[in-house]
Amino acid sequence: MPRTTAGPELDHLISLLSKLPGYGPRSATRAALHMLRKRDAVMRPLADALSKVAETVKACSVCGNWDASDPCTICSDEARDRSVICVVQDVSDVWALERARAHRGLYHILGGVISPLDGIGPDDLRIDSLSERASEIEVREIILGMSATVDGQTTAHYVTERLEGRGLTITRMAHGVPVGGELDVLDEGTLAAALKARRPF
Amino acid sequence: MPRTTAGPELDHLISLLSKLPGYGPRSATRAALHMLRKRDAVMRPLADALSKVAETVKACSVCGNWDASDPCTICSDEARDRSVICVVQDVSDVWALERARAHRGLYHILGGVISPLDGIGPDDLRIDSLSERASEIEVREIILGMSATVDGQTTAHYVTERLEGRGLTITRMAHGVPVGGELDVLDEGTLAAALKARRPF
Repeated sequence: MPRTTAGPELDHLISLLSKLPGYGPRSATRAALHMLRKRDAVMRPLADALSKVAETVKACSVCGNWDASDPCTICSDEARDRSVICVVQDVSDVWALERARAHRGLYHILGGVISPLDGIGPDDLRIDSLSERASEIEVREIILGMSATVDGQTTAHYVTERLEGRGLTITRMAHGVPVGGELDVLDEGTLAAALKARRPF
Repeated sequence: MPRTTAGPELDHLISLLSKLPGYGPRSATRAALHMLRKRDAVMRPLADALSKVAETVKACSVCGNWDASDPCTICSDEARDRSVICVVQDVSDVWALERARAHRGLYHILGGVISPLDGIGPDDLRIDSLSERASEIEVREIILGMSATVDGQTTAHYVTERLEGRGLTITRMAHGVPVGGELDVLDEGTLAAALKARRPF
């Protein structure tokens, strides 16, 4: 049943919008209405931005990061520390770490984690290219930045095995209490890890 | 501060997405990521649909409804009852009533309500064109479908005054308990109106 009376184009737009994360048919209808009211300020610029990004942003052939240039801005930044590669699951992890200015080295994006239940094995991830990069003479340390989930840690172990015996320092991000977080809402695993890794105050 | 490392185009897209209702910077970033993963299924079709709707959908010169054709599909539908016009605030009200198949007559969209606080007076609404339409020989009844808010009811009174003395039947939608609604969450005004307008069972 159509959501509007304005014809198939608008209903098609609403059905596309309702596939966006956080949107359903009602909120997509509201968003379409909002955009129709602000055609020049929102709707047309959004259409242009979507086309432009769809055409220009692609995966970096070195690290797998998404960028309009290849190699990406991070891989081609001469000021970054080329001896440290932080391995993450996804592009959004790179964005988060960069917003935090937490890492001054390079990245390697796996594109997911090993997940037998979802049919994702090591060959579906960018592990071969990580192995190649890790053999480069300048690389000294690999930081494992996968999620602290079962699949994330399985992947971290697999990657570690693949990189062993090359004299690389392999580290992982610390587990602990999130900064600004309250103890009573944290799970037992995090609390145990945070206590075990306690440090002098 | 940029949300991503993928260059200004993607950050511009995210800033546009974050202006949509229900979206902020974080959810807009997630939406952009989702679309980048589904370029052919979501991103490009969405860009095309937005451009197409922005170009084709416009206000009906008769009733103010949005449609790709002018007069709109409803105004040009010969099967509809031309003697009854339902006056609503907004296009989304037409869509809601049409989804409910609640009204088989025509509509008139005011484009808002009189709201002195927001600087919206009668001249900012499509009241003159309603007055003209109401003078047509075939029009017998005007249904006031404004919101049951102070501004909505002020507007309803103003419209009624403008249309008085022409032999038109002017009605309003009934107040009462929403179908499927529970009594204990309803406000006093609705409960009082529902009791007052009670009907034989």
